[in-house]
Amino acid sequence: MKIVNPYDNSVLGEITLSDAQGALEKVADAKKAESVMRKLSAFQRSSILKEIVKGIQENFDELVFILSKESGKPYMYAKGEVERAMETFTIAAEECKRLPHEAFDLDGSQRGEGRRGEYRYFPAGLVFGISPFNFPLNLAVHKIAPALAAGCPIILKPSSKTPLTMELLNSIIQKTALPEGGFTLIHCSREVGEELIQHSEIKVLSFTGSPSVGWKMKSMAGKKKVVLELGGNAAAIVCEDSDYSNALDQLITGSFAYSGQVCIHTQRIYVHQDVVDQFKKDFVARAQQFTVGNPISPSTNFSVMIDEHNAKRVESWVNEAVGAGAQVVLGGKREGAYYPPTILTAVPANAKVRNEEVFGPVVMIESYHSFEEVLKEVNDSRWGLQASIFTDSVAKLNQAFEVLEVGGLLHNLATTFRVDEMPYGGIKDSGFGREGVKYAMMDYLEGKLLVR
Amino acid sequence: MKIVNPYDNSVLGEITLSDAQGALEKVADAKKAESVMRKLSAFQRSSILKEIVKGIQENFDELVFILSKESGKPYMYAKGEVERAMETFTIAAEECKRLPHEAFDLDGSQRGEGRRGEYRYFPAGLVFGISPFNFPLNLAVHKIAPALAAGCPIILKPSSKTPLTMELLNSIIQKTALPEGGFTLIHCSREVGEELIQHSEIKVLSFTGSPSVGWKMKSMAGKKKVVLELGGNAAAIVCEDSDYSNALDQLITGSFAYSGQVCIHTQRIYVHQDVVDQFKKDFVARAQQFTVGNPISPSTNFSVMIDEHNAKRVESWVNEAVGAGAQVVLGGKREGAYYPPTILTAVPANAKVRNEEVFGPVVMIESYHSFEEVLKEVNDSRWGLQASIFTDSVAKLNQAFEVLEVGGLLHNLATTFRVDEMPYGGIKDSGFGREGVKYAMMDYLEGKLLVR
Amino acid sequence: MKIVNPYDNSVLGEITLSDAQGALEKVADAKKAESVMRKLSAFQRSSILKEIVKGIQENFDELVFILSKESGKPYMYAKGEVERAMETFTIAAEECKRLPHEAFDLDGSQRGEGRRGEYRYFPAGLVFGISPFNFPLNLAVHKIAPALAAGCPIILKPSSKTPLTMELLNSIIQKTALPEGGFTLIHCSREVGEELIQHSEIKVLSFTGSPSVGWKMKSMAGKKKVVLELGGNAAAIVCEDSDYSNALDQLITGSFAYSGQVCIHTQRIYVHQDVVDQFKKDFVARAQQFTVGNPISPSTNFSVMIDEHNAKRVESWVNEAVGAGAQVVLGGKREGAYYPPTILTAVPANAKVRNEEVFGPVVMIESYHSFEEVLKEVNDSRWGLQASIFTDSVAKLNQAFEVLEVGGLLHNLATTFRVDEMPYGGIKDSGFGREGVKYAMMDYLEGKLLVR
Amino acid sequence: MKIVNPYDNSVLGEITLSDAQGALEKVADAKKAESVMRKLSAFQRSSILKEIVKGIQENFDELVFILSKESGKPYMYAKGEVERAMETFTIAAEECKRLPHEAFDLDGSQRGEGRRGEYRYFPAGLVFGISPFNFPLNLAVHKIAPALAAGCPIILKPSSKTPLTMELLNSIIQKTALPEGGFTLIHCSREVGEELIQHSEIKVLSFTGSPSVGWKMKSMAGKKKVVLELGGNAAAIVCEDSDYSNALDQLITGSFAYSGQVCIHTQRIYVHQDVVDQFKKDFVARAQQFTVGNPISPSTNFSVMIDEHNAKRVESWVNEAVGAGAQVVLGGKREGAYYPPTILTAVPANAKVRNEEVFGPVVMIESYHSFEEVLKEVNDSRWGLQASIFTDSVAKLNQAFEVLEVGGLLHNLATTFRVDEMPYGGIKDSGFGREGVKYAMMDYLEGKLLVR
Repeated sequence: MKIVNPYDNSVLGEITLSDAQGALEKVADAKKAESVMRKLSAFQRSSILKEIVKGIQENFDELVFILSKESGKPYMYAKGEVERAMETFTIAAEECKRLPHEAFDLDGSQRGEGRRGEYRYFPAGLVFGISPFNFPLNLAVHKIAPALAAGCPIILKPSSKTPLTMELLNSIIQKTALPEGGFTLIHCSREVGEELIQHSEIKVLSFTGSPSVGWKMKSMAGKKKVVLELGGNAAAIVCEDSDYSNALDQLITGSFAYSGQVCIHTQRIYVHQDVVDQFKKDFVARAQQFTVGNPISPSTNFSVMIDEHNAKRVESWVNEAVGAGAQVVLGGKREGAYYPPTILTAVPANAKVRNEEVFGPVVMIESYHSFEEVLKEVNDSRWGLQASIFTDSVAKLNQAFEVLEVGGLLHNLATTFRVDEMPYGGIKDSGFGREGVKYAMMDYLEGKLLVR
Repeated sequence: MKIVNPYDNSVLGEITLSDAQGALEKVADAKKAESVMRKLSAFQRSSILKEIVKGIQENFDELVFILSKESGKPYMYAKGEVERAMETFTIAAEECKRLPHEAFDLDGSQRGEGRRGEYRYFPAGLVFGISPFNFPLNLAVHKIAPALAAGCPIILKPSSKTPLTMELLNSIIQKTALPEGGFTLIHCSREVGEELIQHSEIKVLSFTGSPSVGWKMKSMAGKKKVVLELGGNAAAIVCEDSDYSNALDQLITGSFAYSGQVCIHTQRIYVHQDVVDQFKKDFVARAQQFTVGNPISPSTNFSVMIDEHNAKRVESWVNEAVGAGAQVVLGGKREGAYYPPTILTAVPANAKVRNEEVFGPVVMIESYHSFEEVLKEVNDSRWGLQASIFTDSVAKLNQAFEVLEVGGLLHNLATTFRVDEMPYGGIKDSGFGREGVKYAMMDYLEGKLLVR
Repeated sequence: MKIVNPYDNSVLGEITLSDAQGALEKVADAKKAESVMRKLSAFQRSSILKEIVKGIQENFDELVFILSKESGKPYMYAKGEVERAMETFTIAAEECKRLPHEAFDLDGSQRGEGRRGEYRYFPAGLVFGISPFNFPLNLAVHKIAPALAAGCPIILKPSSKTPLTMELLNSIIQKTALPEGGFTLIHCSREVGEELIQHSEIKVLSFTGSPSVGWKMKSMAGKKKVVLELGGNAAAIVCEDSDYSNALDQLITGSFAYSGQVCIHTQRIYVHQDVVDQFKKDFVARAQQFTVGNPISPSTNFSVMIDEHNAKRVESWVNEAVGAGAQVVLGGKREGAYYPPTILTAVPANAKVRNEEVFGPVVMIESYHSFEEVLKEVNDSRWGLQASIFTDSVAKLNQAFEVLEVGGLLHNLATTFRVDEMPYGGIKDSGFGREGVKYAMMDYLEGKLLVR
Repeated sequence: MKIVNPYDNSVLGEITLSDAQGALEKVADAKKAESVMRKLSAFQRSSILKEIVKGIQENFDELVFILSKESGKPYMYAKGEVERAMETFTIAAEECKRLPHEAFDLDGSQRGEGRRGEYRYFPAGLVFGISPFNFPLNLAVHKIAPALAAGCPIILKPSSKTPLTMELLNSIIQKTALPEGGFTLIHCSREVGEELIQHSEIKVLSFTGSPSVGWKMKSMAGKKKVVLELGGNAAAIVCEDSDYSNALDQLITGSFAYSGQVCIHTQRIYVHQDVVDQFKKDFVARAQQFTVGNPISPSTNFSVMIDEHNAKRVESWVNEAVGAGAQVVLGGKREGAYYPPTILTAVPANAKVRNEEVFGPVVMIESYHSFEEVLKEVNDSRWGLQASIFTDSVAKLNQAFEVLEVGGLLHNLATTFRVDEMPYGGIKDSGFGREGVKYAMMDYLEGKLLVR
């Protein structure tokens, strides 16, 4: 299977898909690593993870380039992603020494007099991770690093659009002291993938990708633990009392970084009616300042989408909204796989660009009157990943945190804010479980109680 | 539907099954309680839980009687169960004031400088609990108490064999200050139950019961969190260096209490070859000393099984094993719903009484030679709930804790040991997730991150 | 020694002071209880603590009356204090079942491969607690309850002004199953007290009282752990954006409850210049509405100070300030032990009423211009117990929390806010260590590591 | 002041002592760093700590040589110590990102409804650390690393016998991005040191050294937090059921590594009477196999003591014991600063070599009969730092952990076992507080509560 650069359609490389037979062999080999991985000390796991960090450091430029090329992600963001992958592995190298074992008395119950408990965490077993195209490296690493830190072998299937970054990471990992079978990269069709999802020797399934696929997997996963990191239509609220220029900075990035192909892309901006006009004007001005070009150029900060298919999909959604009354404030004209920064307003309540995950450089700006009303508006969504609020009011911040149905609320930050140690994940249709190294590890561990 | 006393087949009462329509109305009512429950302070939740404890105390004798009568559980055990239910609610009244919110710095990452995180737990929403006949009160309470402590409304479906205990608990709960819809008791057919399992307004499914039903539910549960507490074929290892008389005491109870109708009933005893003959002899002698009779009599400590159907099933499994070469050391003769304390040995590896959950008063005693071998033997099972080891050797205890594939290992205690604050649950086919008030609450809560 | 009612100088009772010999005997007896207390299970400790709660409940009215009479504390506050003492014991009954033992791997170090650690908490030994007159019951209970919860015997010396409340509590405690010597009440002179402070068999010293005495004790305490809960000159900041009426409510209470004889009494109020005039006017109006009278009357909410000596001290401090330029906005005229609600303004920087702990019903109200300036003004003090800020600004709240040198910052609450489970204590000259049941227990426990 | 090599009395270098004036200036400079250090992000603190690790790595050989030469510590142990110092800084670089802030509800109390608490840790202020000669590097690092991790500036006074190692570390630290005044090395007389101990601008005193000095410091320290890591006379129990060869290996090291100049040096070995004769014989044989020589030689594993003065002290203590009836099984003949591996038996109960900290290569081996008796014998000491037990019995291990009055109990390990992340410290006369990075940090931090 050929992998192409979405910017110029040049061929970057090839991968071979595993057939069912090959996939099952990989599972069998990885399964054998379970007992070997389980016996690694924290020191050994930590050393291996640090070796990977060193390997990434040594292949830094190459990783950035291949990542940028196969995903169309501007160089500056690709660089940031490789740095974050190093940080994610580093956090894992630290967390693996800090498993949250518990020791407690059981003599609070009369029947437990003289008894105490120890609750220790052990590796849960073989993990199957599936990662998406939009962060070809770090969203895979968010599965690999905690799995290895927990002492679990992992099989990782990257997006078939962006497998080359993972090929390079794989070669880095295989050079470390990681036991054979500790990490397995697989490329395969959806059908073969579904066999793995149902495979009884796999104990944990961790998926980042589209909601319809994810929720279906949960039903097929049998006895596995399942983690789903899906999408959303993240909203930001800009209050009349907020730091205006910070809100602009944050939301320009949140709306358009990597053409909005980010799970926590800012899709909806609600601005208080007293400031909405000025905000919209300034926002448009800022959105016109992107340096558009070849992603591989260091100065580029906006480029093509992952493929023309997706650009067309975004185009059709915008057209649908416009047909129903939405106004295009900026952008809206597709050229091949390129879709420009696009700002809509007066978007109807039932438009796809409002309700579905647009996963493209489109944001709507609407005004609101009362704070209670805007909280309801944000919650009027089947998604619940992250949301932002820009305000200096303690009361509003508290109320938003209490009321908003999301996995994470960002104060005075873009919806796209994420550091790799924080708990991350969605509620409602946006996901199941949490990633972030320490939190992800809990899904790759199984508690065992000793009563003495 | 009539409820009968399994000891004398007298009719104890009647319940009305909800049809699909009625069940959906109950869900709708309970759903309405979500926002009310969510607003209760910890003080209010704690007060309600303490009111329930008080209510149980005031209805103590009546609860013991109805529980004993409808389940055939000897009075002394029924009394213990009611006491434990009070303790479970008390623990919940304490834990609801101690939600494990987290506060952390995010400035360990350069991109997080000046930022900190607060990860707070909020109620996950409406819970559907399904509880079994064998602990008609306390295994339901292990769902009700943590749900209320977490601030979630809960709908509870008890076993149709033992619903009257829950009817009484329901009347106790409804007299407290719990908001309307906070607790709902439902009786229904499996078909109606399955509609609830798939209902999108229910956020958590917590099931205690048979494995085949449980695992099927997990596949049907959609986006719900799922907790499954299923069965096992718990094993105990008696080492040559152990405290002999303690092992006898513990395992007689573990094997025969409530006719073995306990998820963690001791089904397999492996005794070191140097002591197995004496152990078997003494064990048989002890097993002959039960006072058999009407469960409601305070002196009875062994009585009928839940129904003749189950007694016949146990009889057929024992017969199957004997046909394949097993020896009956004691017992083995059914009379109606009564099945006596039964001890087998030389049980073939593929016998149901070894491999399936016998859920009856049957235990096998086998000898072993090496410690490694017996650990393998214990692990040679698709179940993994609890196991016991009787030894004074640190090395053996450590090895067993490392190697045995179970949710809990009991040292010098029966496999049936459980106090209500400890994490409890199985791995492999025995379950998914953990109960024990503090641990169960985590499944009824949903984390939300605030980044400031 | 005669104990008098400060309101009418009637004699309420008598206590006998221990001489040195008697005190040493009490220590020897209490020391004997160490090993007995250490062996109590959490269930037993919890049961004893709940028995005490029940005993207080049964003697509720009598406790409120004697407390009110001997301290001159208005009935409504005395009632609140007895309720809080019950809550403090209840929290201890819960916390004693939740000692924060730790279990961790040591194989993060190469030299620790195969090793793990268990860090368990054990009772530290005999405790000596010294409590003040202003909360005759609950501030003693904040030492007794955690000590018993931790499994330590405790000797408690109450203020010689208010020993009768503790006599009654002592009789309640001695009726429980607490082992002999587990709790010892002692009345003694300062000289005898100092012998105990230096006694090598006492392992923990916990003192609540005046700073000069406390810091001297720390130097005399030898190898003991020392906890000091001393005084302060708590400040409140009222910002221009705050909820005005809430600030008034809170600060009237903070300034004048129990005639300001509270460690966290609001002594300094800084109001933004834009609102200070109106605030002062309204505050004076509210301060004139107290119902002054016999503390034992349920309607009284302001009464005498603990004795005429202290009232004269306050009078002289106010006079000193006025002599140096301060203006009396309200009050300032002493009658015997009665000192009225007194409001000052324009208080010079070096006045005692600003810089020392006034421990009387005196508050100063000053205006401020910039937020940075008022933070500096609040910090310009050798004390650091609690402070309040009234604002709706996130930025101001964050800055205040970062900058203010106090043990606790209250948002939109009086400086006197305290619930008994929260960590409580001062920095700078205001104290050493923290109380609040869970936190206090840590000082009564000693960690012991097991490496396996 | 000249620094000499204790092995050959060659002069290694010179240091200049600060006079009182100079010391006060250093305090003033360090004090200025408080606010700068406080503002460093965790990322910055972590980066600085990692820079130090890198600096040590780059100066590894030089550090090992100077450490070995000035302390007389054999090369192999010196190397181990430098490696540990790197690990200690690494742990600190990780822990500084994991401050244990707390978030909790306060609505468990009725008066706290709607309120929640955040308890955050802030740097406590300027630290004064005093470190001993026996681990010239790592015991200083156990103060420096947690202080910097906590955000506190620290002034460190090393032993005047071994200051050159710290001079080199100082030059390494000063090359990093640590703010000026963040780390200050001071050499001074005891008198000048005492001025610092009493200095009010110093907030924390952390001392490792001799008990008489340490406990006196606690009395002089005023309002400071104080941590004392003092000595002991560590005991090991060898049970009849233990792994014999492991016990020999561990205790030879525990008894004689670095000539016993280790706080947790094995001073007393109690062997069950059934195995004591063989143990003694084998132990003597092993103790004769040391390679004695110049510490700087890689093959040397036993060498001179720190100075002749100490060798003479040890000689006189051994002579005193022998005069009172002790038998010398091996060694006992001093040559200059060299004191050989010395084994005593039948040591009288009141001998200094039993009761005081010998801090030299002397160990006593005694037999015991009953386990209860030997536990009492171990506890019959004013010290309580670490102890060892060699056994395979769960019951004995549990009993020992319950009964022994020590900070740490090592199972099947020498008393000298320590990894740098574990809590370490003594009770009774052996110390006050705990080190080990995470634990030490708690003394360098001050909690502040925010109630919202």
